[in-house]
Amino acid sequence: VNEASILAKLPRKHRNLVLGIGDDAAIYRPKANEDLVFTTDLFIEGVHFKSEWNRPPGLSPRSLSHRALARSLSDIAAMGARPQFCLVSLALPKWATEQWIEEFYSGLLNLADQTNTALAGGDLSNAKYFTADVMLAGSVARGKALRRDTARAGDSIYVSGPLGGWRHRESITPRLAEGRKLLGKATACIDISDGLAVDLHRLCLASKASAALDDIPIQEGATLKQALHDGEDYELLYTAPPRTRVAGLRIGVMQKGTPSAITLHGQPLEPLGYDHFRTRT
Amino acid sequence: VNEASILAKLPRKHRNLVLGIGDDAAIYRPKANEDLVFTTDLFIEGVHFKSEWNRPPGLSPRSLSHRALARSLSDIAAMGARPQFCLVSLALPKWATEQWIEEFYSGLLNLADQTNTALAGGDLSNAKYFTADVMLAGSVARGKALRRDTARAGDSIYVSGPLGGWRHRESITPRLAEGRKLLGKATACIDISDGLAVDLHRLCLASKASAALDDIPIQEGATLKQALHDGEDYELLYTAPPRTRVAGLRIGVMQKGTPSAITLHGQPLEPLGYDHFRTRT
Repeated sequence: VNEASILAKLPRKHRNLVLGIGDDAAIYRPKANEDLVFTTDLFIEGVHFKSEWNRPPGLSPRSLSHRALARSLSDIAAMGARPQFCLVSLALPKWATEQWIEEFYSGLLNLADQTNTALAGGDLSNAKYFTADVMLAGSVARGKALRRDTARAGDSIYVSGPLGGWRHRESITPRLAEGRKLLGKATACIDISDGLAVDLHRLCLASKASAALDDIPIQEGATLKQALHDGEDYELLYTAPPRTRVAGLRIGVMQKGTPSAITLHGQPLEPLGYDHFRTRT
Repeated sequence: VNEASILAKLPRKHRNLVLGIGDDAAIYRPKANEDLVFTTDLFIEGVHFKSEWNRPPGLSPRSLSHRALARSLSDIAAMGARPQFCLVSLALPKWATEQWIEEFYSGLLNLADQTNTALAGGDLSNAKYFTADVMLAGSVARGKALRRDTARAGDSIYVSGPLGGWRHRESITPRLAEGRKLLGKATACIDISDGLAVDLHRLCLASKASAALDDIPIQEGATLKQALHDGEDYELLYTAPPRTRVAGLRIGVMQKGTPSAITLHGQPLEPLGYDHFRTRT
């Protein structure tokens, strides 16, 4: 494997960009009246996926790269933005053969094409463990991006779909179209990456409000606990004024009171969820 | 160490941004008639710095983060752009204590402040080896960014300073002011991150031209071989028409002929330099 041969196989041009892969930096020309949103997500062997997954019967390299890009796309969806381009940094251990790397890029470019995301560049290095960092840029009409700090007491709370079922899903489907449809309607939005309880807690903290939940839509085959606390759902969680019609499933209401306190059927709900640092000291 | 306590200590606002750390994505509002340039650089324990360097007498965490950010700033300098914001992803092993992480961010924010770069976000994870990925965004007047594929036969070749002396330097100084002064004058530009010979080779390949070198300015204490082939110089390498007055040290001339062939005093020069993949199979 060498860097030049990896790079030679990647697409050089894309309509979203003035200049893509191959220079010191990629060049993007902003359009009139757009804001740009930026997110980045690490995807690390042994942390975000098991080391054994690089071999059958684990996830294929295509599935891994789909997942790595989908997580960043989900953040862009939560802003109500349209993906524009990504930078993908890869640290490659010896087990990553040229064929494995090609298939990894193939899965990534497949989802990138589906979502009109250009691969604008990145960095390559060797390493002991496989690590990907996927930076994604999106665009949204000026001043319209959905934030997590703008929910108000009295707003209804919604999710874009039933929760807890990620174990039964092949791959993540970022809710890009759903996010864009919320522009001008939702008052706040976040994606559920670490679990409904903990991500709602974050939205409440940012918005300085509390939340009362009633009905939690649960994926077939999942438990209420999984719906509340499992990560990897990647549905959108959002708020809107009670009289505003928005798509989605209503799960409760934003309230005044102790900031970030959450109740379910009137009982306190702990903001437990997936935390990468929980096992650290 | 936990994510919330790390994030709580980082600056939340910066004039370059509409929204910084704390949401699903950062928000940047482009100014009229600007192009944006994007680069990202990995910085990995055991690859870009020795594992022993996380303890005395190795590099301090402040020096490590300075270096990690400076490498990306150098890419932005080579585009003639002004830094705007960065996203910093950190994968943290158990040896990275809260104090170590604080000092790492302190060094990073120090250089970020000096160069008017906002810390806009990033990702945090645990890992077996320390890994940083620094994405940097810069801005430049529309259509004016310096590229590596636009040098022309007959152009003079320059470097921004003497080469080969990185071993004697405490830290990298990205040539941001020097890069911006080249706008409208230089025909092409690249930064010397892997060595003069290999980076000039890249510029020649991209520009479909060859190069003839004569005088190579060497840092005091360095050898010609180090000036030609050592990485980590981070000076700028650029071309300009012979009658255009630009700052810097003239080292040769661009020519027609076999694309990417380089000579030094008429003798062929191999494009050897630092390559992260050279030791891979």
